[in-house]
Amino acid sequence: MGNLHDGHLALIRKAKKYADFVVVSIFVNPLQFSPNEDFSQYPRTLNADCKLLRNLDVDIVFAPDEKILFPVQQEILVLLPSIANKFEGKFRPGFFCGVATIVLKLFNIIQPDIAIFGKKDYQQLHIIRLMVQQLNFPIKILDVETIRAADGLALSSRNQYLDKAQRQEASYLHQTLKNIINDIIAGQNNFSLLENKATDKLSERGWKVDYVSVLNQETLSPVHTRDKKIVVLAAARIGKTRLIDNIEIHR
Amino acid sequence: MGNLHDGHLALIRKAKKYADFVVVSIFVNPLQFSPNEDFSQYPRTLNADCKLLRNLDVDIVFAPDEKILFPVQQEILVLLPSIANKFEGKFRPGFFCGVATIVLKLFNIIQPDIAIFGKKDYQQLHIIRLMVQQLNFPIKILDVETIRAADGLALSSRNQYLDKAQRQEASYLHQTLKNIINDIIAGQNNFSLLENKATDKLSERGWKVDYVSVLNQETLSPVHTRDKKIVVLAAARIGKTRLIDNIEIHR
Repeated sequence: MGNLHDGHLALIRKAKKYADFVVVSIFVNPLQFSPNEDFSQYPRTLNADCKLLRNLDVDIVFAPDEKILFPVQQEILVLLPSIANKFEGKFRPGFFCGVATIVLKLFNIIQPDIAIFGKKDYQQLHIIRLMVQQLNFPIKILDVETIRAADGLALSSRNQYLDKAQRQEASYLHQTLKNIINDIIAGQNNFSLLENKATDKLSERGWKVDYVSVLNQETLSPVHTRDKKIVVLAAARIGKTRLIDNIEIHR
Repeated sequence: MGNLHDGHLALIRKAKKYADFVVVSIFVNPLQFSPNEDFSQYPRTLNADCKLLRNLDVDIVFAPDEKILFPVQQEILVLLPSIANKFEGKFRPGFFCGVATIVLKLFNIIQPDIAIFGKKDYQQLHIIRLMVQQLNFPIKILDVETIRAADGLALSSRNQYLDKAQRQEASYLHQTLKNIINDIIAGQNNFSLLENKATDKLSERGWKVDYVSVLNQETLSPVHTRDKKIVVLAAARIGKTRLIDNIEIHR
């Protein structure tokens, strides 16, 4: 969606490494915003973005007007399985349908061999992989680790909505996930206890927590005793700004 | 779906004319059958089909096992606009979702420049064109006129379900559409009257009519006074066999 930061640039550096022709799409996708969300205020900085992309020697920036992608009202959409209504999907109804539909359209327009997504939007990456498999797209999906500020806050265009005090507090979301990981490494198996403890602690500090969930990495379903690959997902609001983050652990 | 007749062969001849490499897909698609429909008894004649296709000098026959297209339960589907719940979609719930999803999968596997569909499945052709437009598939859709038996019956694999008497009566569906067209050419503007008259006549003769509808060719919505391009769609059952047909008219 543009307003590029080092997280996006990491995607592009990976693309340059794996592909001999790199297309960057920049499009603030109205389909994935609810009416009460920040579509109109979402930061749009195309000129600055293009300067950064020129430095990275990108071949094409595809930044279409809305009328190009939606010449008529989009009435054909991607119908997703129930995982799309959990976690992010529960708190942002229609979000993943909007994401999957625009990604499918961009796939068909750009026809990439490889497409690259960040792990910060962990559930999104999961759903895009599902879509590529189940709809037989001839596209290899690569992921990129989340890029963080020095204090651990995951980079996000929405971080600029934060005032100074909020920005300082924001890194506590990452700290929360690290605490859970440490408890799991220390042998804690009661994941709902960890989720609830984290939620309570965030709430005490003034966050409005949407979810903190300890999940199987590959299915995003609850962790079974023998599961080795775990991910902790979280979403919470600080003031009016909604932040998400996640950490993986291989126990 | 295979069990090839001259209608299918007309599609392939058109493909050979427009493309230098022709792939024929043959797959009886479980997604588009309701539980009470004829999925298990649908005629499968792959060896005979391949002989016909060899004569036509087709490059590839893609006839995958179900496990190839559905290694896991298909949980990502194409969500279609309300037109998909009318006419065929009203009497075959989920039919167009199943069709659109398999066609999308085949598009991604085969990656054709051109795809060819018959006009006999008129609403299907309409929905596939919509899908290609709205999901930005880089594919040109070509259509082929319905091929008919000498008495006017549209060729269909399901015609072989008919016994001798039913086969004789079956051509009356096409006759019904021709009668409507003649009335329109003669100046009749009361389309519901024509629809009802046709339905009554078919019912008197023992047909169970699903619908007879006079529509705008391009939108499949009711005809406005100034519309020039009209199509009449019909679906009706004779015994247990469900037949569909349509005629276009440019008035």
